Order: sequence, then structure tokens, then C-alpha cells
Amino acid sequence: MTYVPVNFEDKFSKFKAQWSPKVVARMNDYQFKLVRVEGEFVWHDHPDTDETFMVIDGELEIKFRDGSLTLKSGEMFVVPRGLEHCPVALKECRIMVIEPASVVNTGDKGGKLTADNDVWI
Amino acid sequence: MTYVPVNFEDKFSKFKAQWSPKVVARMNDYQFKLVRVEGEFVWHDHPDTDETFMVIDGELEIKFRDGSLTLKSGEMFVVPRGLEHCPVALKECRIMVIEPASVVNTGDKGGKLTADNDVWI
Repeated sequence: MTYVPVNFEDKFSKFKAQWSPKVVARMNDYQFKLVRVEGEFVWHDHPDTDETFMVIDGELEIKFRDGSLTLKSGEMFVVPRGLEHCPVALKECRIMVIEPASVVNTGDKGGKLTADNDVWI
Repeated sequence: MTYVPVNFEDKFSKFKAQWSPKVVARMNDYQFKLVRVEGEFVWHDHPDTDETFMVIDGELEIKFRDGSLTLKSGEMFVVPRGLEHCPVALKECRIMVIEPASVVNTGDKGGKLTADNDVWI
């Protein structure tokens, strides 16, 4: 049997679109998604699930209503369910998002940045 | 409110023990665990859950009964539930394991490498 690692660089080389999560792996009911982000996303929350952000390279700020943090390569943060947040990147930043397979990127807000779900690469 | 990133280097600086997973974050019922590994682990499987391996630095071989793969920094692999596997690292390798909070590292096998579960750092 041939077993193939998921290589982040290889996967990122296959797409350029921003705010467009690409699924690269699944663990039970959860998915691992690579995303290119730049600029400010929309304020939203996910009422039913926590959401994990991990930075592959670049810098990602996550704003909350009462504070913020900045993630760099080698850092992660789990946004608790129901907590309003808004990701921001001054320059393009490449991240991994880990969350249940059913989660929509804009959570409760919708809008033009809502991406197709479950797009594998 | 103060929000603090999980920084992998910072977390690894706090322990030296090998094969001793340290929990650094939780997402719903899942945990993110940092582990230093070196040498050969035990053959085992997890009948009820997939298990994710991500390499922070070094090289991790995962042997299966019918093949193997090698993970490097920037790579991951999800071992499907029920699939026997045996992690091996020729030199110390630092990895992240992502799995349900209840999972024991040696799965169905037990033995002296069985680590305490749910140890946060």
C-alpha cells in the first residue's frame, strides 16, 4: 500500500485564491483546511463549535470584541464556540483551519466571502 | 481580555521527556498534544478513532503492516481508525498529535510506553 503525506507547500502551490479554504485531510468528522488570507474578513461566530487557527507562514491577527492576538508561524489558537471574531492579515498569510466538516467559513454572517464548503485539493 | 497564542517552541522548551504527550489546546472534544519522540514506539491501533500526526521538526516514519511513510516539518498524515501503525524516529523528532481527548497513546496495546493522559503544559 502507498501512504502519502500531506505536504503543506505542495498543497498551497495548487491554488492562489484567498479566503477560499481547501480541504487537505479529514479526521473523523473534522477537516483540515488550508487557506490563503489577506485583508480583513467579516465579524462572525460559530455557535456550535470551537475553531482552530494555525499559521503556516505570515502573520494573522484575530480580533475579538474585547481584545486581539497575533499568530505567527508555529503558533495556533482555538477560538471558543460562540465567540465573535474577525481574522485580519496585513499581507497574505497562509493558515490551516481545523473544524468540523460542516462548518461554513463565515459562520452566522454569510455574505460575499462565504466560500464553498468541502472543496478538496 | 488577554488572548494568548499557543507557541510550539515555547511549549517544547518546558519539557524534555520523550513519548510523553503534553496537551497544549483543546477544540471541542479533541486535544492538540506536543510530543518528543525518538526510537521505535509499539505497534498499536485505535479502533474507535482516526489519529493525526503533524511534524514540527525532524523526521517521523510511520510504519504500517503493508507499507510506511516519512513525515517531515510541514507535513501531516491522518492514520485511519483501526489501522495498525508504529511510529519510529531515528533521531529525536518533535510532533503534534491531534485526537479525541480520551485516546491513550498506545491504543489497544498498553505497556511501559503508555503515557498519562490529559497532561497539560
